[in-house]
Amino acid sequence: MPVSPEAVSAGIEEAILFTPRFDANGLIPCITVDAADGDVLMLAWMNAEALRLTLETGFAHYWSRSRQCIWRKGETSGSLQRIVELRTDCDQDVVLMSAEVASRPGTCHTGRTTCFYRSVPLGAGPVERPFKLAQG
Amino acid sequence: MPVSPEAVSAGIEEAILFTPRFDANGLIPCITVDAADGDVLMLAWMNAEALRLTLETGFAHYWSRSRQCIWRKGETSGSLQRIVELRTDCDQDVVLMSAEVASRPGTCHTGRTTCFYRSVPLGAGPVERPFKLAQG
Repeated sequence: MPVSPEAVSAGIEEAILFTPRFDANGLIPCITVDAADGDVLMLAWMNAEALRLTLETGFAHYWSRSRQCIWRKGETSGSLQRIVELRTDCDQDVVLMSAEVASRPGTCHTGRTTCFYRSVPLGAGPVERPFKLAQG
Repeated sequence: MPVSPEAVSAGIEEAILFTPRFDANGLIPCITVDAADGDVLMLAWMNAEALRLTLETGFAHYWSRSRQCIWRKGETSGSLQRIVELRTDCDQDVVLMSAEVASRPGTCHTGRTTCFYRSVPLGAGPVERPFKLAQG
C-alpha cells in the first residue's frame, strides 16, 4: 500500500533522526540568533556541505547564493559565530541556530549589529512604504 | 552608464522605501518571534498578497506552499498572531515579525508551542543523526 502524505508528514515531524530537507536548489534556510540576548541576527542559506561543516566544527558556515561558494561566517569580518544550539522545525526544512557572536557590529555586511535594522510601519496603503527610522 | 551591482545592492540596503524582493516563486520567507519572550516560533512564506494583508490588518497571513492558498494564522487553531513589529533585512528578501500570540500551544500544527522543538547535537559524524530529546 502506498504511504499516505499524512504518514510521510508525521514521520518527518516525529522522527528521531535529523533528516534535513533541502529545496530544489539544494539549500535550506538558516535563522541565526544571538545566544546572549536572543536577537534574530540574520537568515542565510546552507547547502549540505555548509550544514555538515557547521555541525562538525561548531562554527557557522553558510552558502552564498551570490558568490556560489561556502562561506565561514566571520572569516573576513571577524564576526565568528560559535554554535551553542542547532534546531530544526516540524517539517525539517528550516534550521535555527543559537550562536555566541565574536563581534556583533560585524554581523551584517553593512556594519550593523543585525541584518534586521529597518522597521516597516503597519496599516493600510501600498506595501512599498517608507521605513520607520533605521536602527543598528 | 549601467548601474553597478554594488550600487544596486547599496540602494536596497540603504533605501528609505520598503521594496520587498520575492523569489522566483513570488515568495519571501518570514520569521515570526513571540513578542513576549523573543522565542522564534516559525518560518513561513508570504506572497505579495499575504504580506499586504498582514500589513493592512495587523494579523499574520502566510502563503501555504502545500495547499497553495493564503492562510490567516490561527484561523482554525485560534493561535492568532497580532503583529507588534515587522522588519526586513539588508537585502529586503526576508521578513521578521514580532507578534503577540493568542495561544502558544497552537503555534505549531503538531500542537507544540514552537515549530523548533528538536535539537540536533553538534560534533563529527553523519549529518543524519539522532535528535536530542524533543521539547515543547
